[in-house]
Amino acid sequence: MTKHKSKYEIFREKIKIILYGTNTLAGRMFDLVLLGLILLSVLLVMLDTVEGISKKYHQQLLICEWIITIFFTAEYILRIISIQKPRKYAISFYGIIDLLAILPMYLSIFFPATSVLTIVRVLRFLRLFKILHIPQISHQSYQLKEALEASKEKILVFIYFVVISCVIIGALMYVVEGKESGFTSIPVSIYWSIVTLTTVGYGDISPITPLGQFLASLVMIMGYGIIAVPTGIVTAEFAKASLRNSSVSGKKTCTQCNAQLHFDNAKYCYQCGKTLPNN
Amino acid sequence: MTKHKSKYEIFREKIKIILYGTNTLAGRMFDLVLLGLILLSVLLVMLDTVEGISKKYHQQLLICEWIITIFFTAEYILRIISIQKPRKYAISFYGIIDLLAILPMYLSIFFPATSVLTIVRVLRFLRLFKILHIPQISHQSYQLKEALEASKEKILVFIYFVVISCVIIGALMYVVEGKESGFTSIPVSIYWSIVTLTTVGYGDISPITPLGQFLASLVMIMGYGIIAVPTGIVTAEFAKASLRNSSVSGKKTCTQCNAQLHFDNAKYCYQCGKTLPNN
Amino acid sequence: MTKHKSKYEIFREKIKIILYGTNTLAGRMFDLVLLGLILLSVLLVMLDTVEGISKKYHQQLLICEWIITIFFTAEYILRIISIQKPRKYAISFYGIIDLLAILPMYLSIFFPATSVLTIVRVLRFLRLFKILHIPQISHQSYQLKEALEASKEKILVFIYFVVISCVIIGALMYVVEGKESGFTSIPVSIYWSIVTLTTVGYGDISPITPLGQFLASLVMIMGYGIIAVPTGIVTAEFAKASLRNSSVSGKKTCTQCNAQLHFDNAKYCYQCGKTLPNN
Amino acid sequence: MTKHKSKYEIFREKIKIILYGTNTLAGRMFDLVLLGLILLSVLLVMLDTVEGISKKYHQQLLICEWIITIFFTAEYILRIISIQKPRKYAISFYGIIDLLAILPMYLSIFFPATSVLTIVRVLRFLRLFKILHIPQISHQSYQLKEALEASKEKILVFIYFVVISCVIIGALMYVVEGKESGFTSIPVSIYWSIVTLTTVGYGDISPITPLGQFLASLVMIMGYGIIAVPTGIVTAEFAKASLRNSSVSGKKTCTQCNAQLHFDNAKYCYQCGKTLPNN
Repeated sequence: MTKHKSKYEIFREKIKIILYGTNTLAGRMFDLVLLGLILLSVLLVMLDTVEGISKKYHQQLLICEWIITIFFTAEYILRIISIQKPRKYAISFYGIIDLLAILPMYLSIFFPATSVLTIVRVLRFLRLFKILHIPQISHQSYQLKEALEASKEKILVFIYFVVISCVIIGALMYVVEGKESGFTSIPVSIYWSIVTLTTVGYGDISPITPLGQFLASLVMIMGYGIIAVPTGIVTAEFAKASLRNSSVSGKKTCTQCNAQLHFDNAKYCYQCGKTLPNN
Repeated sequence: MTKHKSKYEIFREKIKIILYGTNTLAGRMFDLVLLGLILLSVLLVMLDTVEGISKKYHQQLLICEWIITIFFTAEYILRIISIQKPRKYAISFYGIIDLLAILPMYLSIFFPATSVLTIVRVLRFLRLFKILHIPQISHQSYQLKEALEASKEKILVFIYFVVISCVIIGALMYVVEGKESGFTSIPVSIYWSIVTLTTVGYGDISPITPLGQFLASLVMIMGYGIIAVPTGIVTAEFAKASLRNSSVSGKKTCTQCNAQLHFDNAKYCYQCGKTLPNN
Repeated sequence: MTKHKSKYEIFREKIKIILYGTNTLAGRMFDLVLLGLILLSVLLVMLDTVEGISKKYHQQLLICEWIITIFFTAEYILRIISIQKPRKYAISFYGIIDLLAILPMYLSIFFPATSVLTIVRVLRFLRLFKILHIPQISHQSYQLKEALEASKEKILVFIYFVVISCVIIGALMYVVEGKESGFTSIPVSIYWSIVTLTTVGYGDISPITPLGQFLASLVMIMGYGIIAVPTGIVTAEFAKASLRNSSVSGKKTCTQCNAQLHFDNAKYCYQCGKTLPNN
Repeated sequence: MTKHKSKYEIFREKIKIILYGTNTLAGRMFDLVLLGLILLSVLLVMLDTVEGISKKYHQQLLICEWIITIFFTAEYILRIISIQKPRKYAISFYGIIDLLAILPMYLSIFFPATSVLTIVRVLRFLRLFKILHIPQISHQSYQLKEALEASKEKILVFIYFVVISCVIIGALMYVVEGKESGFTSIPVSIYWSIVTLTTVGYGDISPITPLGQFLASLVMIMGYGIIAVPTGIVTAEFAKASLRNSSVSGKKTCTQCNAQLHFDNAKYCYQCGKTLPNN
């Protein structure tokens, strides 16, 4: 029987509501404080790498970081304690991120360089959607995710061909341009061809011989068609999902023949002619 | 009774027709003069920042600016006076722009540097569509606006993920590349990753270590897929709007139930079943 | 009566067949020679600007250019003579290009610098499609042209907003960055914002202050959405044209009710149920 | 009669199963070893061009390359011997690649520089899909290939216009900018206009005169619309293929006339009118 809960159990349940819940005031307040602390912590790590700021305020920044780390550690322990299945949480996506968010700081006691890794805390921001609890946005991210997943395989096949092309182009440009223009080795030339095909074009390496510039022009015009492919793949998926969602949202079903996929403004079943129910 | 209008009232009404109307000759003439002055004023501000021109003609440019500013100030005051609800105009989008277009010049008496802010006058150009009064164009901008609005939420979710990715990538590149290659701090590294993911690629900062170049290559290939997402979102919305407009041109209306949006080749009303009239 | 043609008339007609016709062997041969000469001439002009080649072979290149120019001049005169309505040809698109292709060379007698303008001969290449006479390709360019024309207005509205945005962004960056980073004047800053928004990103001008880099990041992320717009507009038009062409090519018409827009593989009319004729 | 096979014939058949088969364990094992060796070989060639590594380990890398080359040579000879129609293999796509993968190494005995060409071995990686034998992926690459093939002609027409535009723009910028800004000749200027129109934007050449920057801005904004075209063409093809695949998944076949490609929600055959079976 669970009628008489121990004090510890009552405490655990309260903690659980605050840490995991988003419906109570305490739960929401805690989430907002958490988000604020994550943002603050990420900003502190970032600022600590800026030379001018680091020289003056390194001590203060470090102290703040430690305070936030101790808070996050306490939160992590309480999360483990208060949940029924601590193991499931610990190996879940968010559980691992929560752990990764505190580990680098403790490691930095022994290896100071690792303190910069606390930046992974930014991943905790992915909770935002869970916390904000806006159904529309979670619907949108679901649609985004689905369209990207549907085009995953096509994108992979495409990247496979792009990588093979880049190796060939890179080797060719290495032979044509030589070491004077910055094409110092095949790996560097491959780096150049990726920079060019993706139309990023840093300009740290660029062809200077006429033949090299001619080949590069061909690669760029080829890149025109190539950049169109992933866009085409993803767009086709979006268009499909978007059209499906807009005109045929699937809310209507014929009560006589069970036909689905009616237009949202249809009045009669397209299969048997029976009047459709209103939304 | 408003039969006997005072001279002031008649003047107000005349002014109103000139300033706000687009149907009378005086109204249209005024609009054209206004557009010309805005264009002239923007050009003057721009030219005044070009060193060679500023040195020689600063005085002349300044005098012209002041003449235009006084004209705009008079226009603003007349607009306030002549309209029934001056408050509504003052806090409207165009009212605020009209005010912002004259303020910087007066401020520049005390703070000379603010004179450059008169460039905001360019925003007054948004009136162009109102003035030109071309129904086709306003229809097009309405369609553009609607498609962008429909994809707003998806774009926001997407940018949220992009920003988180850029922070992670930036921190990683900062650790890998170090200060010698220009990755002097995490904020600068994040700036680099935005420059790279958007395929802008200035080249002011670019990786020089093999590992850094390898990571950058991964980021660029990732950027391939990423740039496809907003394009996909917006395109899907356009395609939807465009298809809807083409196959349902709105020429048919049911004579019995007044239902609209019939397919162009539909014969029977989808709502009441009555035969539709031919085009 | 035109039974007894003068020798001159017979000559005119023969010339006309060769110059304008594409069906006879002589006509086709002439077209191929013409294309070859145009290509050669364009290459000569290009090579004459390369310092190494110009120094050695300038005389030879110039002589070749003059020979081709005299040939083109003869061709132009014959075209005028042989056609019924010489005026119509002279003011047609191709007539003007043919004239522009010979003028610069004669002008270069007085103004040597104009010889480089003979490069406009490259425009004569647009004849290629007429000459090749491949129905499939002319169908494709027709489709391309139509889709671009349909999206012309939307693109114009879009460019209007982009230009206004670029002026605002340019002025802002001029104020923020100042003259040290290359943002020497507002026109130059506007040039920078166009370079950035279009994701070209030369890197000849790039922000160096933290605030400038932050603003530039915002502009680039904004540019993400912006570059999606023209793509979306054009793609939607293509998709519409493409879908229409593929499944409903319009070859079938019901013999009973005259309904059109049948699917290409439909057997029965979707309106009256009558059997459709085969292609 | 082929009942009594010679020992040689049995050996040939065994070899054939190993080299060409993908169903037996031996065949699959061989394929994996082959892929591993190709990858290793490509890495070796790439590393040998990196100065630091080449200086220390050139001898060892060369020996490894030769061992792999001899293995590939043996494989090539066995492939020729074991197959019924050696000629057909030798002139097939994969046969030529297999030969090209070993030739450069033997040529390098006489011309050492050719050793870098062994990088063409990377093309052997295209076998991967054949080896992995994942029906889903080969379906995806088939769809990709088909969509690209369908848009081939439009893309060619488009590239034709782009190249003509680039020549005109290049010549114009050469005249406007002159030799000081890097626009040293028309071919170099054409290279610049391709770099700009494709939005790569190295920045090795960039306009510095006001007029040049103004023209470049026009080119970039023009490039906005231009980059949309190939994307639009490819996307429209993908969307068509994708929509066709989704609404017509091919699960339904008419039991009377064997017609396929019914809409998933169709109830009656579009060819003979018979009731379709449910899924």
